[in-house]
Amino acid sequence: MATFNNNVPTKFPKLAPRGPAGDLVLAAERAKASFDPQDLTKFMYDEEWLQRLNRILNIIENEPAFDKSERYFLGRTDKVNQAYWKDKRTVELAKKHNWTEADVQMASFLWDQSSPFSLHSSMFLPTLKNQTNDEQKKLFLEPALKHQIIGCYAQTELGHGSNVQGLETTATYIPESNEFEIHSPTLTSSKWWIGGLGKTATHAIVMARLILNGKDHGPHPFCVQIRSLEDHRPLKGITVGDIGPKFGFNTTDNGFIMFEHFRIPHISFLAGYAQVKPGSGEYVRPPNAKLSYGTMVYVRANIVMGVRFALAKAATIAIRYSAVRNQFVDATNPRKWENKVVETAVLDYTMQRYRLLPIIAQAYACFFTGREMLRLYNENQKNMSSGNFSLLADLHASSSGLKSLCTTMAVQGIEDCRRACGGHGYSMFSGLGLFYQDYLPNVTWEGDNYVLTQQTARYLAKQFRGVAANKTSENELNFTSAYMYDFLQNPSSQCPATQASDFLNPEILLGAFRFRAASMTQKLVHALDNQGKSWNSMTVEIARLSKAHAQLILLSNFVSGIQNARNELASTSLAALKTMAMLFATHTIEQELADFLVSGYLTPEQASYVKEITLELLEKVRPDAVSLVDAFGLPDYYLHSALGRYDGKVYESMTEMAENEPLNHKLVTDSYEECIKPLIHAGKAEGRWNGEGMSAKL
Amino acid sequence: MATFNNNVPTKFPKLAPRGPAGDLVLAAERAKASFDPQDLTKFMYDEEWLQRLNRILNIIENEPAFDKSERYFLGRTDKVNQAYWKDKRTVELAKKHNWTEADVQMASFLWDQSSPFSLHSSMFLPTLKNQTNDEQKKLFLEPALKHQIIGCYAQTELGHGSNVQGLETTATYIPESNEFEIHSPTLTSSKWWIGGLGKTATHAIVMARLILNGKDHGPHPFCVQIRSLEDHRPLKGITVGDIGPKFGFNTTDNGFIMFEHFRIPHISFLAGYAQVKPGSGEYVRPPNAKLSYGTMVYVRANIVMGVRFALAKAATIAIRYSAVRNQFVDATNPRKWENKVVETAVLDYTMQRYRLLPIIAQAYACFFTGREMLRLYNENQKNMSSGNFSLLADLHASSSGLKSLCTTMAVQGIEDCRRACGGHGYSMFSGLGLFYQDYLPNVTWEGDNYVLTQQTARYLAKQFRGVAANKTSENELNFTSAYMYDFLQNPSSQCPATQASDFLNPEILLGAFRFRAASMTQKLVHALDNQGKSWNSMTVEIARLSKAHAQLILLSNFVSGIQNARNELASTSLAALKTMAMLFATHTIEQELADFLVSGYLTPEQASYVKEITLELLEKVRPDAVSLVDAFGLPDYYLHSALGRYDGKVYESMTEMAENEPLNHKLVTDSYEECIKPLIHAGKAEGRWNGEGMSAKL
Repeated sequence: MATFNNNVPTKFPKLAPRGPAGDLVLAAERAKASFDPQDLTKFMYDEEWLQRLNRILNIIENEPAFDKSERYFLGRTDKVNQAYWKDKRTVELAKKHNWTEADVQMASFLWDQSSPFSLHSSMFLPTLKNQTNDEQKKLFLEPALKHQIIGCYAQTELGHGSNVQGLETTATYIPESNEFEIHSPTLTSSKWWIGGLGKTATHAIVMARLILNGKDHGPHPFCVQIRSLEDHRPLKGITVGDIGPKFGFNTTDNGFIMFEHFRIPHISFLAGYAQVKPGSGEYVRPPNAKLSYGTMVYVRANIVMGVRFALAKAATIAIRYSAVRNQFVDATNPRKWENKVVETAVLDYTMQRYRLLPIIAQAYACFFTGREMLRLYNENQKNMSSGNFSLLADLHASSSGLKSLCTTMAVQGIEDCRRACGGHGYSMFSGLGLFYQDYLPNVTWEGDNYVLTQQTARYLAKQFRGVAANKTSENELNFTSAYMYDFLQNPSSQCPATQASDFLNPEILLGAFRFRAASMTQKLVHALDNQGKSWNSMTVEIARLSKAHAQLILLSNFVSGIQNARNELASTSLAALKTMAMLFATHTIEQELADFLVSGYLTPEQASYVKEITLELLEKVRPDAVSLVDAFGLPDYYLHSALGRYDGKVYESMTEMAENEPLNHKLVTDSYEECIKPLIHAGKAEGRWNGEGMSAKL
Repeated sequence: MATFNNNVPTKFPKLAPRGPAGDLVLAAERAKASFDPQDLTKFMYDEEWLQRLNRILNIIENEPAFDKSERYFLGRTDKVNQAYWKDKRTVELAKKHNWTEADVQMASFLWDQSSPFSLHSSMFLPTLKNQTNDEQKKLFLEPALKHQIIGCYAQTELGHGSNVQGLETTATYIPESNEFEIHSPTLTSSKWWIGGLGKTATHAIVMARLILNGKDHGPHPFCVQIRSLEDHRPLKGITVGDIGPKFGFNTTDNGFIMFEHFRIPHISFLAGYAQVKPGSGEYVRPPNAKLSYGTMVYVRANIVMGVRFALAKAATIAIRYSAVRNQFVDATNPRKWENKVVETAVLDYTMQRYRLLPIIAQAYACFFTGREMLRLYNENQKNMSSGNFSLLADLHASSSGLKSLCTTMAVQGIEDCRRACGGHGYSMFSGLGLFYQDYLPNVTWEGDNYVLTQQTARYLAKQFRGVAANKTSENELNFTSAYMYDFLQNPSSQCPATQASDFLNPEILLGAFRFRAASMTQKLVHALDNQGKSWNSMTVEIARLSKAHAQLILLSNFVSGIQNARNELASTSLAALKTMAMLFATHTIEQELADFLVSGYLTPEQASYVKEITLELLEKVRPDAVSLVDAFGLPDYYLHSALGRYDGKVYESMTEMAENEPLNHKLVTDSYEECIKPLIHAGKAEGRWNGEGMSAKL
């Protein structure tokens, strides 16, 4: 035991960082901007959204349950427990302030982590709203809306993710008692990965194979009570628990569940679509399944909008820190600050700009495409309700490719931003590490990003065949068949650019993206139809094709979105956005250069123009960099990053956060007595210099 | 409070997984192999290493301090405390079993995580060995070897990583008392990221600016006692602590330290190289600094060898799981098992092979290059001791590019393997998540991977200029200048391949890699010397050039390494390795296709041959996949992965590990009473169906 007071928290001496102070540096950066970030902010978020953000932020910033200061220090169990407090407090605040659903969503957006109740709101309630009859709404939805029952959505099994038709859990109808018997026949049939199921949910939407009179009708949804509403104990016949720690998402109790001949009443079968006649157990088919594709498009549109926030958050942190952080004096072009030569801001190194500025452009690209997807979703829903499915196929295929491309781009962008922050990017205080961990599942769920590309490519091939066989008349061309059609007018055309600056022309850029995607589709169709290649053997090219199509959509929506914003934005803001769009295009060509060269549309010389113009664009964007991320309007509470603070006080923040490290609450670590002292004192006998005599006394 | 016994651990019912059992599947895979993995294992590791591995493994597998079963569940503080026990026990075991340094390293290799004492062995001891005089060896090294003092290496500061010359900490000589005064003038001068400093080290090698009679001689090393050897308290004038949680490496107490006019005796200045005359404070220059470059090469060679293990570990887990995991029935080519049609193993999907098999090839490539780097290091050390520095420049430049390329490749490979495991790759039980987190710093430390590429490119440009100006005569050509020389003989030559199978010819493949690197060097030199481009403006191309050179070295060593192994390996093993080398080459060309096309050496048609042959090679490697990872001989204890077990019992292992999740040790979560019950019971008044009547009783 320590013979002194060991409970002395470590405090840093009150010293200033060397070099230009972060707040002054960022102020100077902001003064350089060619446009007013407020103008862009108001354009991207409507007034109502911004007011909501500030109103909710003011409330939760003062709520202990929403305090983030412990976030990076908690172990798994504490993370979950803290999330319970936040969930419970959210329900209370919603009552107290009469929060709308949008208000609750804003609170959870700002909190920026999943929680045990997340799936209750995002999956359980919507399923009950869409797939129940009136009696079931009264029985399940009403109490669920009041949190008198808490639910989750149990589809994935230990042995089956992507392949829903391969699910093993069965629901056998028992006419005698008018019940269903839910059963898990094997270990792999255990439901797995189910958010909120581990220790929280009282009910679960269970996807199980419907067995009627011995016939297997495939997976159908059941609303099943799994825990007692009196004492929360799992009901008899159920084995349920948490699946253990994950790479991220540890604030949620993702769970497993197994059923042993578990009986549920007939009413549990969600009768919104298909139905089972009581007694006879006769099966009544569901209506047009196509309708559900609409929902998928909606989910994916929101994922793309989420990618905008993900890239914006990562870029905000990395750009602000790269403006504040200095490294090396650039001898050829020394930086002056208050008439003294100081080290160069890392953001002024070409490679750092090349690594970071295109990520800002990607964020804006996702904003314009996400917005367009939501517009098309609404248009399509209206059409479908009047029996018009003309938009659906293109919309669904594009949304698959966009979800795949954009989430992969987001994960890459977050990690590129983290690495661009050097050593401190590896500290949890950067805010990028945990964010990366929590964001990562997006590349796997809602359709694995590789599997999804096959849906897109299958549609593109179909469109190409139609156009090639002149089955598609010019007036019925959509976005996709239109560029296939143009391509087929002249499949050997070449890019007209004769100098670097030609690549500032949107039409020249779009032409390259169109030709690339169309010619890759042609190659695929040729391989499948004329060379007898199997689909499986072409999946590598298929993934590339889907990416090419999605990148074309991103650029196309970016360009037209700016066009349509002519009257909503100041010319300076429009100019800044145009530069972003050009940078997005040329940087993407550089990244995918092989495709463009193989298609024969670009020559190696034109490729060198693209590299040249990309560097020029980076130069041009540089003075606007900080304002371009400011425009995303992400508050410090949301970022929770020592490196990304609006005021640029990076080093003060790093040291403050370090003072909160639990290991620093004692002078000498608890392990000293047991693990360190025995080794060190083993040598006490031998006389040896121990320095203390020569250092100042304690 | 629960009215029932809540301490009932959750247990899975004893059921078997559906489909072919994992152990039988892997046995069948192993039976398919075209070679004996043991043969490759013995070739890669010498007999002594394998015996050591088994001897040490047998000991630590039965040591509670080395138990890994809690690893994925621990929070930060517990991680550190567990690592202390493991460190202390290692010291005891080393005594008990007379472990050599190599034995200790093997134990830490198998443990596979950093710890508070890691830097004591890896940096503190080597520095004391190399940079001290005899008196200092007695004073510091001897007690350090016995763990009577524990040290760390304090160079990086809060404000300075890469730029060592920018360090701020000062060490001012005080002639009167023959002492140095260590001081931290600003907040940014705080030492930061120092492994083992946070709560452990009694001593630190501190890099501080040596100030003699007012003159600044730049950073020099001092051995400074920082904590009491009596009670471990930080000495007066020192602020020291842990820098807080990191993305990974949380088993180590990376620390910060600030000095307030802290006095240390003259003896603390490490006098191995430079010296300071007592009293006068006169500075005596160090010998040839070049010598230290040798050490850098050694460190980097070991990093490349480490990449081999990193990729081998990730690939072993992903390949075994992909062989066991089934998804979808492939209608065109249904899989039979015991005469029943079963789902297809994911490893039989082209995209999965494309994602995983090249990673095995990269691991073997790193083995051959790492081995060659070590050979050259030894040869160069011998040369230098006799004053011959001819090898140094090329070796140092290549090692920079190789460290940069290989560690980036490793991080990408680990993450690609994790994603290829689908949902379960996101579970910590996959073993890939924590591994990725802990491995990641390799891309930043020992030279940031982007900064390093400039060292390589600078050397390549120099070589090119020499050859172009005929300053290098043919007989003094080294590996690098030789391929520049060949290129300049015919800078517009083209790849002779006329059919896909030509890309199975090593000379044709090597020719392409040589031409690409040389022509990229030519472009860089032209831009710098003739177009007046600044170095900074070329850093994007510079990074690509360094990568091209490093990839050429990897392929070249791979091919020659197989050549030289003719007599050490069975022909079947040699054939398997050759296929690996081809796959490494063609897959790399595909990934970097733009470079090869822009150089004009490959035509788009030849590019299509490369894609074609790559798919053929994937087909050919497939039956050997499991045996190729078995050959790395990585024991289950080292992998600690539910998905990567040698016996393929994936689902049994996932569920066993989940049973250990602390949240599953109680039926009802502790948060129920406070956070869930109030919401649910709020509705008890209202009558509503609660299911229990209809389900079996508890």
